[in-house]
Amino acid sequence: MFFASDNAGPAHPKVMDALVKANSGYALGYGADPIMAEVRQQIRDIFEAPEAAVYLVINGTSANALLLATMCQPWQTIFCTDVAHIHEDECNAPEFYTQAKLTLVPTTAGKMTADALRAKIKAEETRGVHGPQRGPVSVTQVTEKGTVYSLAEIKALTDIAREYGLPAHLDGARFANALVALDCTPAEMTWKAGIDAVSFGGTKNGAMGVEACVIFDPKLAWEFELRRKRGGHLLSKHRYLSAQMQAYLADGLWLDMARAANARCAQLAEGLRRHNVARMLCDPAANIIFFEMPRQDHQRMLAAGAVYYVMSGDPDQGDPDEMLTARLVTDWSMTADGVSQFLGLLHG
Amino acid sequence: MFFASDNAGPAHPKVMDALVKANSGYALGYGADPIMAEVRQQIRDIFEAPEAAVYLVINGTSANALLLATMCQPWQTIFCTDVAHIHEDECNAPEFYTQAKLTLVPTTAGKMTADALRAKIKAEETRGVHGPQRGPVSVTQVTEKGTVYSLAEIKALTDIAREYGLPAHLDGARFANALVALDCTPAEMTWKAGIDAVSFGGTKNGAMGVEACVIFDPKLAWEFELRRKRGGHLLSKHRYLSAQMQAYLADGLWLDMARAANARCAQLAEGLRRHNVARMLCDPAANIIFFEMPRQDHQRMLAAGAVYYVMSGDPDQGDPDEMLTARLVTDWSMTADGVSQFLGLLHG
Amino acid sequence: MFFASDNAGPAHPKVMDALVKANSGYALGYGADPIMAEVRQQIRDIFEAPEAAVYLVINGTSANALLLATMCQPWQTIFCTDVAHIHEDECNAPEFYTQAKLTLVPTTAGKMTADALRAKIKAEETRGVHGPQRGPVSVTQVTEKGTVYSLAEIKALTDIAREYGLPAHLDGARFANALVALDCTPAEMTWKAGIDAVSFGGTKNGAMGVEACVIFDPKLAWEFELRRKRGGHLLSKHRYLSAQMQAYLADGLWLDMARAANARCAQLAEGLRRHNVARMLCDPAANIIFFEMPRQDHQRMLAAGAVYYVMSGDPDQGDPDEMLTARLVTDWSMTADGVSQFLGLLHG
Amino acid sequence: MFFASDNAGPAHPKVMDALVKANSGYALGYGADPIMAEVRQQIRDIFEAPEAAVYLVINGTSANALLLATMCQPWQTIFCTDVAHIHEDECNAPEFYTQAKLTLVPTTAGKMTADALRAKIKAEETRGVHGPQRGPVSVTQVTEKGTVYSLAEIKALTDIAREYGLPAHLDGARFANALVALDCTPAEMTWKAGIDAVSFGGTKNGAMGVEACVIFDPKLAWEFELRRKRGGHLLSKHRYLSAQMQAYLADGLWLDMARAANARCAQLAEGLRRHNVARMLCDPAANIIFFEMPRQDHQRMLAAGAVYYVMSGDPDQGDPDEMLTARLVTDWSMTADGVSQFLGLLHG
Repeated sequence: MFFASDNAGPAHPKVMDALVKANSGYALGYGADPIMAEVRQQIRDIFEAPEAAVYLVINGTSANALLLATMCQPWQTIFCTDVAHIHEDECNAPEFYTQAKLTLVPTTAGKMTADALRAKIKAEETRGVHGPQRGPVSVTQVTEKGTVYSLAEIKALTDIAREYGLPAHLDGARFANALVALDCTPAEMTWKAGIDAVSFGGTKNGAMGVEACVIFDPKLAWEFELRRKRGGHLLSKHRYLSAQMQAYLADGLWLDMARAANARCAQLAEGLRRHNVARMLCDPAANIIFFEMPRQDHQRMLAAGAVYYVMSGDPDQGDPDEMLTARLVTDWSMTADGVSQFLGLLHG
Repeated sequence: MFFASDNAGPAHPKVMDALVKANSGYALGYGADPIMAEVRQQIRDIFEAPEAAVYLVINGTSANALLLATMCQPWQTIFCTDVAHIHEDECNAPEFYTQAKLTLVPTTAGKMTADALRAKIKAEETRGVHGPQRGPVSVTQVTEKGTVYSLAEIKALTDIAREYGLPAHLDGARFANALVALDCTPAEMTWKAGIDAVSFGGTKNGAMGVEACVIFDPKLAWEFELRRKRGGHLLSKHRYLSAQMQAYLADGLWLDMARAANARCAQLAEGLRRHNVARMLCDPAANIIFFEMPRQDHQRMLAAGAVYYVMSGDPDQGDPDEMLTARLVTDWSMTADGVSQFLGLLHG
Repeated sequence: MFFASDNAGPAHPKVMDALVKANSGYALGYGADPIMAEVRQQIRDIFEAPEAAVYLVINGTSANALLLATMCQPWQTIFCTDVAHIHEDECNAPEFYTQAKLTLVPTTAGKMTADALRAKIKAEETRGVHGPQRGPVSVTQVTEKGTVYSLAEIKALTDIAREYGLPAHLDGARFANALVALDCTPAEMTWKAGIDAVSFGGTKNGAMGVEACVIFDPKLAWEFELRRKRGGHLLSKHRYLSAQMQAYLADGLWLDMARAANARCAQLAEGLRRHNVARMLCDPAANIIFFEMPRQDHQRMLAAGAVYYVMSGDPDQGDPDEMLTARLVTDWSMTADGVSQFLGLLHG
Repeated sequence: MFFASDNAGPAHPKVMDALVKANSGYALGYGADPIMAEVRQQIRDIFEAPEAAVYLVINGTSANALLLATMCQPWQTIFCTDVAHIHEDECNAPEFYTQAKLTLVPTTAGKMTADALRAKIKAEETRGVHGPQRGPVSVTQVTEKGTVYSLAEIKALTDIAREYGLPAHLDGARFANALVALDCTPAEMTWKAGIDAVSFGGTKNGAMGVEACVIFDPKLAWEFELRRKRGGHLLSKHRYLSAQMQAYLADGLWLDMARAANARCAQLAEGLRRHNVARMLCDPAANIIFFEMPRQDHQRMLAAGAVYYVMSGDPDQGDPDEMLTARLVTDWSMTADGVSQFLGLLHG
């Protein structure tokens, strides 16, 4: 009953096996290992992008910050949602790497609409050099609220970016969960929808700690490499990143894990819908649920060993009937029985 | 016969076992995993520093850059050698994180002398706000040339730093190799010798990719934590860093590996001393040798499958008799037989 | 009829006379000129702050950026209004100097309320290292909308800052205009109201180009000096900044000029109130008016030679009856006759 | 007898007259003033560069830092001399603006030779992403030691830069003094000699505080404008910069002032050559002399009211016979009589 985060669960055994298997003999460092050559090809194939530049880093914060820095100038502003991970959860890493600022687009259920994005871009009229200049648009898929943009919604956002000459970034920390939810191809969810660069997550979906940075315009490749090194994000024993990603992608393991996580989430959602007081804040599309429930019910669940974050107040102190918002996140490793046990307690 | 780098060899099987063992069930992320609590205690014990702040990062560049940024102000200059890794091999990462500059102290055999350091510090008279202000002194142990400072030499450098009110940093990417070479304690090589913070390497000595940042003044801890997060260097699935370091330190594995690497290096040095034309540039004290040899001999060795870097010219092109400098690095995983094979070829 | 900006008018002749007078013989540079010693004392006297650190820079952007950088850490967020000059009009200079980010507090008539500020500070719960940390509160007085905070309003904002341990900055580009509007002392409007540092403007109120940075805690003085030099904002021939500020403050010239500017603004406001279609957006308290009027009326005024900015649309193109917002700014050099002429045309 | 610096003397009365004349009526700010349009044309004419981008800033530090930032990437290193103003006297401003580092080329008499530059550029082999990448070459003319590069010497340096694809910057804080020393045209000393951008000084040669940034490739213009604003270096009441530069350039005033300064320096040098113990460190070519003389002679001169910097030791304390190095700087405002008086004392 551990629903705190999809970065708290274990890596898939096949990923660990690949690490152990890679740990033999000598291999050139810094990305020149032979496994990386294979990974590059895997990702180009998966994205139907034979020219794409592909790099591996250890986590989503560095992937986002490095990609945005490569797409942005220090006098620009990056358009993202007011709940974006790059705004709320990275302790100014995007600002550190880009030297730019963020303009927050208001959201409904974690998503910005095309109209809201356009309004913010229009408002950022720079009056010559005085204001910040318009910079990249960053879209998070799966959103931080557990919703998923449709392909048409992504396209509508990148169309506006294109109209203003701005590049588009996809924060895909939960890329696989969105992909299986939409049942589309990686190309459809990215460059065919107008995305220029992707933070392609592995860590939250069964890897130990690896994300790919995929840049569709190879002209940016060398700058990215220099930024990665300068940020301290180029690993010497790089083969251990490569091996993780190789196993993650092999035989559709990444999609299987995302499907499993989403299925557990759907099971949770189904149970919550039947509950007489708990209420989901929006319809979960992937592996995250936000719901509200009286404090006393949270207390009961937490006391019974359920682990998850209560976001809007202290679960221990206060009016027992006050509705408190909480978040449930599922991952590949959860069992249907574990979810049933949680729902049983909830309904009990 | 792979002597290119100590970051090209495999991790020790015990480190991999620890990773696999850690990969079970849920664990809080971002350093709150239970293994990290144990690692913190291990390192405090090893350093006889019960108050030390201890953090893990993925590599030496980030360890150095984050520690120096925590010890430095943007208007200062960091004193290091003219062959320091932070100067030559980190693509401006120290400048990026610290916003400061580096003042290069000339070296003999990779070491700065106390007199050379003092001369540079004195010369950096700031004339009020005009020049850069004096900042930290950074000492590399094992040096980039394979030599090792004695405890008295370190103390002489930190005494000057202290005299000018400057903090002292130790780049210990090969900390263990130096420690066994000096046969002293970690405390003796660091805080007892005047060092304020240490980049404590694991990656080059049998880990997969982990370094500890050890700060003896716990008042700097919180700033370090914020800088690590802001640099994108805080891992969500942190347990996999912790597990590596735990296994690395357990039962003296780290010292055993360093002793093995140094022994192989001594074996190489002994063989080179007997060679009639090859000549070592300085006496190796740990696991690195710089030597020179005619181009044609390098060609012969490389053709026979030896792998190492020739630093001072193209081994393939040029006068066959020209002396070219090369580097040999040993690690824990090499066998005496492998070294004998190399020496046999060399002497053959 | 030139109401575009208070930085478009001339400097006061007494300021120019002081420059010419200062231009004689040799004077030490970089702030060591004898006039600066007098200016420091003038400002300490005026602010009743005998320990205050006082520095001169060329403009408001550098004053704000340097002060905020001295009060802030790179992992923090600065609380300011959503119309703040530091947010909208400085092309990321605050972000460049502080390396931090801005959190925008919503406004009414250019002002943030204590409740709005508190809500934003509370929302910026950092969850450990994950979010940006809370940083300085920056208050603009006169606001960008021409309103003026009462002393109690400033105090209410700095009380919240104090409660959270955050320093408070005053962007006083139009400090004098606010002061005469409130009819209070500089001490009352700053440190007695909880302000820690002030950008004390001169440029918009009759100087050629000079602002004082006044820091009430002298412990920050040296850091400020280093930041100023590192930003390229320390003038070698500093006496020409000092001379301006000396003349600006002598015999209450600065207050006389602010009173004149405010009086012209009041005259404009009185005329606008009598107008049958023009409508002021908020009651002007100092020397700025925002008002709306049909496009055709703007066209008529602009064609007649009035100069001012129409903010909300193109005055030349569109529905003649559409209401367009415009800004009028007065300065010390305007005459009552000039304003009457403008109002005559408006009513004509 | 004030030889401390050419930034300690007064501005030329014609410059002050121009300021006063410009101080009338309204003028658009931020560089849109009509005088700036004239200044741009003046400078394009003087440099025979009809396409050049021309901007004004307040001092040499900001001119250098902004130009270098526009010519450089954060992962590069800038090649300059080990006595360069950008290295020694700007408190990390170049590092702040460029985010890059400096590589110091050794000097003789303040100059780098082509061989020394080539050696440093070659040594900066980057080994892929590991080292800093090669960046701009910055040449100071007049050098910090008072010598002047010949046109052929400048060309030899920029030829090497061109060979490696690096841009070339000229720090011309004393541009006019060099120009009259070489008796050449501005075009010959800059773009015809391979220079891409110039910090064109006015402050040290009779202006109040103004430098032009001249960029021969207009494609960099917009980035420079954004960097200037973001650095807080765009003046609102810009006309007062423009007016200075206009008067400075009008009727060859700038060249007359430089000739006067150089003539006073030559007079000093002639007197020093006749002295029996004082010894010049290199032959002065413009308006700066470095010389050495026993401490007791310095004491005598300083006691008699001469003002200049003794660089290599405390003039007040120590062996009376110790030779101490000192610097003499002349400017436009000095009289031949004043210099004679100094020399009379010296020889007395």
